[in-house]
Amino acid sequence: MSAHDTALRLTFLGTGNAAQTPVYGCACPVCARARQETAYRRGPCSALLEIAGQRWLIDSGLPDLAERFPVGSLTGILQTHYHADHAEGLLRLRWGLAPPLPVYGPDDPAGFADLYRHPGPLDFSRPFTAFERRRMTSANRARPMGEEYPVEGEPLASDDTGVFYVTAIPLAHSRPCFGYLIEAAPADSARNVRLAYLTDTVGLPPESETYLKRQRIDLLVLDATFPPQPSAPRNHNDLTRALQTAAVLAPGKTLLTHIGHTLDAWLSSPDAQLPPGVACAKDGAYVEF
Amino acid sequence: MSAHDTALRLTFLGTGNAAQTPVYGCACPVCARARQETAYRRGPCSALLEIAGQRWLIDSGLPDLAERFPVGSLTGILQTHYHADHAEGLLRLRWGLAPPLPVYGPDDPAGFADLYRHPGPLDFSRPFTAFERRRMTSANRARPMGEEYPVEGEPLASDDTGVFYVTAIPLAHSRPCFGYLIEAAPADSARNVRLAYLTDTVGLPPESETYLKRQRIDLLVLDATFPPQPSAPRNHNDLTRALQTAAVLAPGKTLLTHIGHTLDAWLSSPDAQLPPGVACAKDGAYVEF
Repeated sequence: MSAHDTALRLTFLGTGNAAQTPVYGCACPVCARARQETAYRRGPCSALLEIAGQRWLIDSGLPDLAERFPVGSLTGILQTHYHADHAEGLLRLRWGLAPPLPVYGPDDPAGFADLYRHPGPLDFSRPFTAFERRRMTSANRARPMGEEYPVEGEPLASDDTGVFYVTAIPLAHSRPCFGYLIEAAPADSARNVRLAYLTDTVGLPPESETYLKRQRIDLLVLDATFPPQPSAPRNHNDLTRALQTAAVLAPGKTLLTHIGHTLDAWLSSPDAQLPPGVACAKDGAYVEF
Repeated sequence: MSAHDTALRLTFLGTGNAAQTPVYGCACPVCARARQETAYRRGPCSALLEIAGQRWLIDSGLPDLAERFPVGSLTGILQTHYHADHAEGLLRLRWGLAPPLPVYGPDDPAGFADLYRHPGPLDFSRPFTAFERRRMTSANRARPMGEEYPVEGEPLASDDTGVFYVTAIPLAHSRPCFGYLIEAAPADSARNVRLAYLTDTVGLPPESETYLKRQRIDLLVLDATFPPQPSAPRNHNDLTRALQTAAVLAPGKTLLTHIGHTLDAWLSSPDAQLPPGVACAKDGAYVEF
């Protein structure tokens, strides 16, 4: 099924926290199982959004982006923030001989490593502002430059004239960080599909919670890094805070991501249960509307 | 053949420049061939040094170090400098549940990304000083800490009581950067084996050239990023400057590394020829003494 048959497809490319699963050197049952069976691994938290004939990465922490996404296969990148586990893959792309690739994220003066100094084809020139709602078209997607050799890859389908909207939602993290509210008009319905992708965050800033509570959200994708903690952790949700946010926003469905090995271990206990409508995302799984 | 049968084995894990080969998006013949045939790829410039019962990485730019080197399989890391293509793999290792892993490199206050702020098990506390000659033993290699779960991996062989010497050689690059002169006593010979690993650099600082000219070098591994240029490039050797350095140091053999796709393209011309005793390194190849 191509992305053109649906209004929106979100594929989870990675659902792990910064350490990923298996954690290097860790022999806990969760990490041991993930080392044996690739289906249980959790890579750097990121997703592929296919919508309105466009293909956007949400975060770029996968180190093998050059192999996964040949030039021409991506419209651009929605960057939540510039921590290494969300941006590492840009380190290779920026040396590419490729047309400009828009990277839309927060206006973080530090960025990641020396990316701003040597951006290559990565175009960081249009960061989002808080609560900006941007009309996303692929019309301004750059075409191949006059390189000495033609660039590889096929352009996107010629019917990529669709439009969707992205709103930048400020999150509560250790550096400038946006979640994204994504709105698509499905082919067979009068109403918009709304997806909120909120990571990395611990709880929500009050203005963001107020803004999102006004929306009807079909799918909430939410940071849930740790098992329940006695008090709120720094920078990331534990399961308690994640479920509180899910209850407040009351989406159609909630998928947890940015999952650390200790949360997987906690959830493997026979007593652990997630509320109805809440589940853990898995690497490689996708949802469609 | 295990490393214990030889005095020194150097395995080239990556022989590419920052862009690697194939370059993202490039369809030149060199990149097209590398995309088809993995044997022609060049990954981030790095090597594995097996010597005196110890196993040291030279540079850590490979993003999959966690998969390649389980905890316990490395004695430590010799870091030439902290550019992304030489240090990217540390981003994951530093979240490991693992005993301390020494990372010996130049005293670069910036380091790479936020590694110094969140080093995890990486131990940056003993940088080299210029021309320091350090006695390398695995006696002070840390043993697993009292983790909740035992760490994976086998300890090194119990006869890892060998000793070798490393001298830090200042190079001419855009940030603090050391090459390394490595000295091992082979099992079957009275004289030392000497390997000079010199990347990233353009030419050599005069003091480094003077120092190295006094040594009998069996193997020179040298930065050769570009084909011959009319004038010296910045930060990296072109082939002209690399061959000049090789002629001055007069090693037993020279292997070029940090090779960009344009040098491979230049070398594929029928007229192109390297002098006797000079060859290009290849990913996965090794040399033994």
